[in-house]
Amino acid sequence: MGRSGANIYENGLDVGEANRVALTPLTFIRRAAEVHPDAPAVVYGDVRRTWAQTYARCRRLASALARHGIGRGDTVSIIAANIPELFEAHFGVPMCGAVLNAINIRLDAQSIGFILDHAETRAVIVDPEFADTVEAALSFVHSDDLLVIDIEDDTFDESSEPIGTKTYEAFIGGGDPDFDWQMPADEWDAITLNYTSGTTGNPKGVVYHHRGAHLNALSHIVDWGMPKHARYLWTLPMFHCNGWCFPWTMAALAGTNVCMRAVRAEPIFRLIETERVTHFCGAPIVLNMLGSAPEAPDGFGHAVKVMTAGASPPAAVIARMEAMGAEVTHVYGLTETYGPAVICDWKSQWNGLSADERARLKARQGVANTALDRIMVTDPETREPVVANGEQLGEVLMRGNNVMRGYLKNEAATGQAFRDGWLASGDLGVVHPDGYIELKDRSKDIIISGGENISSIEIEDVLYRHPAVHEAAVVAQPHDKWGETPCAFVTLADGATATADEIIAFCRGNMATYKAPRTVIFTDLPKTSTGKIQKFVLRQRANELIADQPEP
Amino acid sequence: MGRSGANIYENGLDVGEANRVALTPLTFIRRAAEVHPDAPAVVYGDVRRTWAQTYARCRRLASALARHGIGRGDTVSIIAANIPELFEAHFGVPMCGAVLNAINIRLDAQSIGFILDHAETRAVIVDPEFADTVEAALSFVHSDDLLVIDIEDDTFDESSEPIGTKTYEAFIGGGDPDFDWQMPADEWDAITLNYTSGTTGNPKGVVYHHRGAHLNALSHIVDWGMPKHARYLWTLPMFHCNGWCFPWTMAALAGTNVCMRAVRAEPIFRLIETERVTHFCGAPIVLNMLGSAPEAPDGFGHAVKVMTAGASPPAAVIARMEAMGAEVTHVYGLTETYGPAVICDWKSQWNGLSADERARLKARQGVANTALDRIMVTDPETREPVVANGEQLGEVLMRGNNVMRGYLKNEAATGQAFRDGWLASGDLGVVHPDGYIELKDRSKDIIISGGENISSIEIEDVLYRHPAVHEAAVVAQPHDKWGETPCAFVTLADGATATADEIIAFCRGNMATYKAPRTVIFTDLPKTSTGKIQKFVLRQRANELIADQPEP
Repeated sequence: MGRSGANIYENGLDVGEANRVALTPLTFIRRAAEVHPDAPAVVYGDVRRTWAQTYARCRRLASALARHGIGRGDTVSIIAANIPELFEAHFGVPMCGAVLNAINIRLDAQSIGFILDHAETRAVIVDPEFADTVEAALSFVHSDDLLVIDIEDDTFDESSEPIGTKTYEAFIGGGDPDFDWQMPADEWDAITLNYTSGTTGNPKGVVYHHRGAHLNALSHIVDWGMPKHARYLWTLPMFHCNGWCFPWTMAALAGTNVCMRAVRAEPIFRLIETERVTHFCGAPIVLNMLGSAPEAPDGFGHAVKVMTAGASPPAAVIARMEAMGAEVTHVYGLTETYGPAVICDWKSQWNGLSADERARLKARQGVANTALDRIMVTDPETREPVVANGEQLGEVLMRGNNVMRGYLKNEAATGQAFRDGWLASGDLGVVHPDGYIELKDRSKDIIISGGENISSIEIEDVLYRHPAVHEAAVVAQPHDKWGETPCAFVTLADGATATADEIIAFCRGNMATYKAPRTVIFTDLPKTSTGKIQKFVLRQRANELIADQPEP
Repeated sequence: MGRSGANIYENGLDVGEANRVALTPLTFIRRAAEVHPDAPAVVYGDVRRTWAQTYARCRRLASALARHGIGRGDTVSIIAANIPELFEAHFGVPMCGAVLNAINIRLDAQSIGFILDHAETRAVIVDPEFADTVEAALSFVHSDDLLVIDIEDDTFDESSEPIGTKTYEAFIGGGDPDFDWQMPADEWDAITLNYTSGTTGNPKGVVYHHRGAHLNALSHIVDWGMPKHARYLWTLPMFHCNGWCFPWTMAALAGTNVCMRAVRAEPIFRLIETERVTHFCGAPIVLNMLGSAPEAPDGFGHAVKVMTAGASPPAAVIARMEAMGAEVTHVYGLTETYGPAVICDWKSQWNGLSADERARLKARQGVANTALDRIMVTDPETREPVVANGEQLGEVLMRGNNVMRGYLKNEAATGQAFRDGWLASGDLGVVHPDGYIELKDRSKDIIISGGENISSIEIEDVLYRHPAVHEAAVVAQPHDKWGETPCAFVTLADGATATADEIIAFCRGNMATYKAPRTVIFTDLPKTSTGKIQKFVLRQRANELIADQPEP
């Protein structure tokens, strides 16, 4: 196509310092502090800090780390609840060239030790709530040069002994608030390291880069329609995929980060009102908690937008949040895609549909966000795209600038994750005729019964429609004749009663009979720190049970 | 800082197709068409097209150009009013790898001929309104292989003869609506070529790249708080810095482009109402026209945001628009910065100030937008940043991804534009204590009287406050004793009267005496096609006049 050889645009029009600047979210906080120095950046209990103050603290942190000899390509870990210090680390650590490793606060000492060791961490910043666990974790670390920094938190009411050599305030107090931090040498440089909460084997360290963090943070603004100075409540764990990139989004908007130690209904409802919160994110399990909380208000006094992901939110949960006046947006992503990279982009013509129809549309994961280049669902055998008929199941593949660089020091796993120029998600889904994808299951969560694929999510959706059901999860149970059959674990709503037979009958009345669970167990559901139900635990339990197996 | 040599993030974490995709605004229209195929994309008279239809037409255009042998690094020119074909060209031309050159519709035949020749244009698409001029321009073109394509426009009521070999509809009718267009090989590839309307010498061809177009288009969404599906009225010429990148912004938002051939008050007010326009842009001269139009409504029936630039908008013009209910945002940029790259980012605490104080703050150009990395004002002699005191004058420098690659085939001019890693704007300004910049003049528009710098803009601001003044422009006039003195050209408002002495007395009463104009000429003001007053014409007239020069 066209003429070969050099064209007129290939001479004398070179990259220079004036017209090529590395993309990084670090420029967002500099701009927020310079343009809106007095605007509120962080609120936490009695702490209220402006963008100028927060930026100065981030620069002090970067300066103190640099003075300690920490720089480009070094890892700095932190284990903390959603408190200001964790927000600051998202800027202060990469400002000295280092890579931020925010650790899941629910992990046990051995897992934390593995991560600190694997990441070759040079320093770890510790929230007092997790000091004992981290202290135990340190025995698994081989480095003899690990700097341990204790956060002090006046609002945390349990006393704990410091385990490090410096407090966070003393450490950053020795740093320069005017530190001349450096832009990343290359926008491909690592900015953060997030370990997946793998259910088997050792966790894998997902490496994010500055370019992807910049672009995914902006994408939220475009796709969620976020205004300047939005007020964001930190219900989503900030350690989880860097809070889906929202620390950086909030800096780009010069908005307010409303921090919170414990995700409970009372402080959430209180802060939404007192801080006039406009946006928050959370797993469906968090929305479920809010919807069923006794202190739930009839409605919020102002517009609130909620983003949810982590599992397909049951229609009933969406309906409950909307009844309170919140506009729910459903998104989907992986740790490997900087959190959400797919969004159920809402169409105004859907507003006229029935509540059931709207909930059905909203339960779909949707389309690539602005930062993600492409999403594709392919047949696992032929590797051809599935037919967009809402029926043919395939694996979800993604590509774009918000796809990870790879897994740290794990070329085998990196090689497996990337396939023919795409990231393989391990999730199974369909494409609807309008191009929106809908997940049907994790590859490993699909139930294959008599040769038929049964989606555990589809059964769960029916279970959630039963009025007595508070939470539900379905896994495969081995079966001599059928191979596998669905086994449901159910938590009943407070004060509600139901028998297993009633639940099974309800399912058979609302879906294909062969898909209905053969077994129903009433129990509390085991969950990960991010609120995901731990299906591998349930799968073990299902294996151990002798199933009650009536013929279909 | 840190350890030397390779770090753990430098191995096994390589760029691949899955995680590195070229930034380009072309992905925006693909996403709009795939996700919101039925949403309105373009409205023009009786023409209403969806995003699916518009995308198909862009792909047809790209396909037809490719079949004609046009591809990477070739130039395709277009000369058209703000009609759908010009919008389509912003996508269809780069989709075949070519570079879009949208030409100023007010240029004379010789200037157009120079541009077509200099750009080595392979094809030119011609609006019937400008067919005669382009036909005359073709005689200046040396290529014997230039494809000329005639747009037909039913709503254009003057008949004209086709000058090319194909109509636009026939040409794209031969193209493939499913054309498999290619992403740019590199995000640094040229996407458009915009000739500056230089007042002396030949125009210079400013080269934009895909990366900068993508980022500046997104920056408008963040900085102007634009929602999904915004409805944008095309009052700003789309040929002017690619409509400040708004064709691409509107695709990213899947919004509606309300097109318009002639920028007159009646259709603007009508379309704002009937198409429920939410956003439009225009030079202060356009806002002035709207504010003083007899058909101006008391207020718009819904929220309207207006972005203005091109010259510092007089406070009175801002006040008039705000009285009609429009929220005015002041921006600043150059052809060399993809249009606006600087924004007077509004602070909520300013809302409580008096109307005069608000107008004074809003007349400042402001701060770097999200896409621009940095703005700096330096002393022309020492090259050190000026003191942020609102007083010390210096030259405005900028750097960022929304700075041009350079001038096409003009390394000398490119070399002059870039200085020590910055783009030199040629504009003079001050930095206020809050970091906001305010332009005082173009370098060449400053008046130096008795060794003192006098800002022509400052005098114009005072003149606009006089109730009888409709428009005003001030230039330097040679003076034996003082070197230069200010000479004012004034257009009086309809039905208003004033004498030169009254105007001078008003100025002396409202500013330092030595800054007041010595001469006032009542006349219509000569303007460029983008509404900028042509000061070089006024300067010539001032030279020719014998000034009336009372002692100060």
